Amino acid sequence: MKAVGVVVEYNPFHNGHYYHVQQSKLNTNADVVIAVMSGHFLQRGEPSLVSKWHRTKMALQSGVDAVIELQYVFSTGNATQFAEGAIFLLSAIQCESFAFGSEQGDIEPFLNTANLIEEHADEYNFLIKEFVSSGLSYPVSLYKAYEQLKQKKNQLYIDLSKPNNILGYHYIAAAKKLNCSIKPVTFMRIGAGYHDDIQKDSSIASATGIRKALLDEGNLESSKAYLPEASYKELLLWQQQFGKFVHWEAFWPLLKYAIMRYTPEDLTAFADVSEGIEYALLKHAKNSESFSEFMSSIKSKRYTWTRLQRMLTHLYTGVTKE
Amino acid sequence: MKAVGVVVEYNPFHNGHYYHVQQSKLNTNADVVIAVMSGHFLQRGEPSLVSKWHRTKMALQSGVDAVIELQYVFSTGNATQFAEGAIFLLSAIQCESFAFGSEQGDIEPFLNTANLIEEHADEYNFLIKEFVSSGLSYPVSLYKAYEQLKQKKNQLYIDLSKPNNILGYHYIAAAKKLNCSIKPVTFMRIGAGYHDDIQKDSSIASATGIRKALLDEGNLESSKAYLPEASYKELLLWQQQFGKFVHWEAFWPLLKYAIMRYTPEDLTAFADVSEGIEYALLKHAKNSESFSEFMSSIKSKRYTWTRLQRMLTHLYTGVTKE
Repeated sequence: MKAVGVVVEYNPFHNGHYYHVQQSKLNTNADVVIAVMSGHFLQRGEPSLVSKWHRTKMALQSGVDAVIELQYVFSTGNATQFAEGAIFLLSAIQCESFAFGSEQGDIEPFLNTANLIEEHADEYNFLIKEFVSSGLSYPVSLYKAYEQLKQKKNQLYIDLSKPNNILGYHYIAAAKKLNCSIKPVTFMRIGAGYHDDIQKDSSIASATGIRKALLDEGNLESSKAYLPEASYKELLLWQQQFGKFVHWEAFWPLLKYAIMRYTPEDLTAFADVSEGIEYALLKHAKNSESFSEFMSSIKSKRYTWTRLQRMLTHLYTGVTKE
Repeated sequence: MKAVGVVVEYNPFHNGHYYHVQQSKLNTNADVVIAVMSGHFLQRGEPSLVSKWHRTKMALQSGVDAVIELQYVFSTGNATQFAEGAIFLLSAIQCESFAFGSEQGDIEPFLNTANLIEEHADEYNFLIKEFVSSGLSYPVSLYKAYEQLKQKKNQLYIDLSKPNNILGYHYIAAAKKLNCSIKPVTFMRIGAGYHDDIQKDSSIASATGIRKALLDEGNLESSKAYLPEASYKELLLWQQQFGKFVHWEAFWPLLKYAIMRYTPEDLTAFADVSEGIEYALLKHAKNSESFSEFMSSIKSKRYTWTRLQRMLTHLYTGVTKE
């Protein structure tokens, strides 16, 4: 029996994910699809809309054969850690391949990019450091270093400004680093862009768009067209039981309290808290009435929104560096 | 200039406290009254109804000349620690005397009791231990040991079942232990008993009764007759700003979260958490929807309500044994 692995968050499981599951099977002739899925906290340092159990039910009722939880330390790590945890698990349970949707759609440019960066790792890291020192954000520095590296050889490379290409690159780099024989497969994503709002004329919408509709309007009906029946049902059950979907904003009183329990020194014991941000955390936690107000106060060019959210996730859950 | 000290919580400052301030001056011919007052958390392990700043304003506008905060470690300690912290402060700032209201009303029986217990300290502690081992609660054991001790000499002693006599005894025992020259003065309390509800036919009501009226009914007007003008005004300001008065119940989501952040082992690092109660704390925090439900679940003969509340205060504020 052949298994294809997929790396997912399913927040929530929507028609695009359904298509991804089907395409993964088709492109690999696999008998079963195994999903490695984030738990309650996701890679961008956010709580999931509904519990991991609700999300698992959605997946199992829509074509996924098994769901394995990606452990917290990987699911809330940076892209490299996230990918390594996921590919390690898929490889360990002997998936023959793993499949991901991408803006690129062909696997060759991914392999070229992964080889290029691997071969020139030192130079690549040096360039990134230079750009960061010059005051650019980490993602922009990374992108600029890559653009420079691409001049080395006349090959087809992926566009690393596209979010799903970035994820795919990390999966492939992880497989190389872990020396796994698991085979990477990609196909073109269809429908919505990663960050697009719900498009009224298609059955595919991005998870970001669906979340926005659910959180901002609290209106599940407007997302119905973009969800498999099982997803709609699970979301409806959640809404009936808890009244609303989960967002950082609802955790703000607890997070504020968690931060204010500590001295600046204590705060640095928590994972990802470093470089003096503990003082800003304490100062602004005290004065902020909402999560968004707090985030706006601590946000700076040095810290991306995602990096801050991951740090706050660790503070919230109490995960220390140790 | 002569100063008399008083030990207070002013939660809130009411007509009985006003009488106490006046009597303290009259009975000692003092020029000024200095109050040592608990901060945001009180001796029974509860948050105060309004902030310590609001309570200080009430006092300063009603005849108290200065308010000194009793440090957290004393204000949330047991009666002995509370009294020692307070008497130490009053003595350190050179109050000539300290004055307290009591059910007894005369100082002689207080001094007799303090001498009796001091002289037979070993026997007293042995008796208490015996009674506790036999399954009685700590307060009851203490009372029974005292009854036995009183047979030693034919003197007038205080009734140690009365709450204000108990407090007074601890003040005097503290002054003896600290070897302070500060002079104890007492006078009879008038009006309401310690735990009595508001009496409709008097201008004096107990703080407990007033708190009950404010918390249960949220109706400040019904307490107006028992409060000096300044207290009423401060309470009204608080109510207008925050909508309600402070009670453990409002802190429950935060306290629950604080407990659930930790492992049983971690919990034992906090002050007063011992003897295996950490398992009960974790188990019942998870399942309780309110503070009262939680307290009912963890309450046992071994732990008085007050002892549990002090323990929870330390967990809430993050104060460790260290």
